[in-house]
Amino acid sequence: MESMKYVIGVDCGGTKTEASAYTITDGELLETTTTGFGNLVVDYSKAVANIRQAVDILLQTLGAGDCQMIVMGIAGIDSGGFKQKMAEEFSYLPVNPVFLNDAQLALYAILKGQDGVVVTAGTGSIMLGLVDNHWYRAGGWGHILGDEGSGFDIAKKAIQHVLHEYDSGEETSAFSKEILTFFDADDVFSLAKKVYQVDKGEIASAAQQIGTLATDYSQAQIILETAGETLAKKTLQLINKAPLAGKPISIGLNGSVIQKNERVLEAFTRYLDNCQLPYDLHKKEASSAKGAYYIYKGEQKL
Amino acid sequence: MESMKYVIGVDCGGTKTEASAYTITDGELLETTTTGFGNLVVDYSKAVANIRQAVDILLQTLGAGDCQMIVMGIAGIDSGGFKQKMAEEFSYLPVNPVFLNDAQLALYAILKGQDGVVVTAGTGSIMLGLVDNHWYRAGGWGHILGDEGSGFDIAKKAIQHVLHEYDSGEETSAFSKEILTFFDADDVFSLAKKVYQVDKGEIASAAQQIGTLATDYSQAQIILETAGETLAKKTLQLINKAPLAGKPISIGLNGSVIQKNERVLEAFTRYLDNCQLPYDLHKKEASSAKGAYYIYKGEQKL
Repeated sequence: MESMKYVIGVDCGGTKTEASAYTITDGELLETTTTGFGNLVVDYSKAVANIRQAVDILLQTLGAGDCQMIVMGIAGIDSGGFKQKMAEEFSYLPVNPVFLNDAQLALYAILKGQDGVVVTAGTGSIMLGLVDNHWYRAGGWGHILGDEGSGFDIAKKAIQHVLHEYDSGEETSAFSKEILTFFDADDVFSLAKKVYQVDKGEIASAAQQIGTLATDYSQAQIILETAGETLAKKTLQLINKAPLAGKPISIGLNGSVIQKNERVLEAFTRYLDNCQLPYDLHKKEASSAKGAYYIYKGEQKL
Repeated sequence: MESMKYVIGVDCGGTKTEASAYTITDGELLETTTTGFGNLVVDYSKAVANIRQAVDILLQTLGAGDCQMIVMGIAGIDSGGFKQKMAEEFSYLPVNPVFLNDAQLALYAILKGQDGVVVTAGTGSIMLGLVDNHWYRAGGWGHILGDEGSGFDIAKKAIQHVLHEYDSGEETSAFSKEILTFFDADDVFSLAKKVYQVDKGEIASAAQQIGTLATDYSQAQIILETAGETLAKKTLQLINKAPLAGKPISIGLNGSVIQKNERVLEAFTRYLDNCQLPYDLHKKEASSAKGAYYIYKGEQKL
């Protein structure tokens, strides 16, 4: 039997790093391993150590000689100077890794190497498009300037609703009481304080609870529908910017908010439908790491 | 000659602490001194040391025996447990200090002990009302959740305009180029990064520049007018909540944005005028520290 040639994809996010190896012939998953966070902005040295550990395990298990390509999708890689530094950190590897941000890697995995758009909406949000090897982007400016329609944005809108009731001198509504309870806050003051003290992901986790509350509270429905529409508007902004308009567009869905929150997804597709946009939705079927396999296949074609 | 009895007011802000002594007879300024920042949230120990230094200088100069009252207006004092801790820190003083937040002290200084509303719009924003010894509040939820119409909010809106052009694939407008230049940013990416890396006050300082740009750029005008209207809306929210409606309302102006930016103030008053609200505007004539004198006079009356 021939030796088994493979590629490695590494999805490095804010909470975990997942490295997976796929055969180059048909993208079969050979081996996968998970270590700690791989977000360079959170803690550069720890992130590098976590990424190294994950990759080294795969190389030892499968043999370094058969590794054809390593692709790393890393949160925060676009910030100044990181690509150069990371190339040095990983110069010991048998092949020089390709560095992308985590949303770019997800796009390859979800669209399986086709051109199109991926909507990422988790803690933050960003719209990415890939057309003829050119990248296009809209949104993704972080929780103060943007991240519209993200989990953090949904949680923020709910918290602002509670504050608005207070500012208006209204009684605290049943919905607002649910939000206070979720954040274990005694009053509006401790609720507001949480936003400045607690991790962004923890605030964003309220989006799931707001999804549950939408059954009973119209305020929750409004917030989720607005998020879906906002994501659709940013997606259209991107489509009009990238040379994509006029043909059916592949739209991939990435991140817990757009994948798991039905009301957000419904509002998203309803908005696009109303704009009479021809598109195909692509749900995420495999790990973002599999993007490495499609990148390898694409490069082999050229 | 009788000894000169006096009160001390201390205005403790994010950049400096100003302590001033006023005669109890007619509020004449006797002595003033300035030390470093007095914001407890920035650095508790340093803030306490700065405040102590300022107060001690006045007491030594004027004699501790004649001090009738000390009032401290401290940014961040409302956060959990600070009042108790501060009472202990300053238990050595000849009189127990009265603790307020800095916007409350400003209200006393600007409205000279009358009931009414003060609009504070500097780096952040908050609306405070005082009626029959009860406080009312609207806004002031910080730069992520609120601070509508503040300097930070004005700067954020300008930066978001630059990002919106990028997201839409438009060419960078002349106004956006001015914003990039102001923040010494080469592109939208480094511009967005600044917001997350640089001190809030530094971001908010762009509001003044946007005031200058309003002569030439309609986008700057729109941002400033929106800020003024937003401050007016929050003020009306407060007026409707506090038992103030129906009689001419004293409205005080506090903070650089509402005091110095003419377009913001014009939009603010135009909005109130359109609502047919009877009010008198009170501009800030003395330091916030003088609030201590009016508090002393009010308490003597009771």
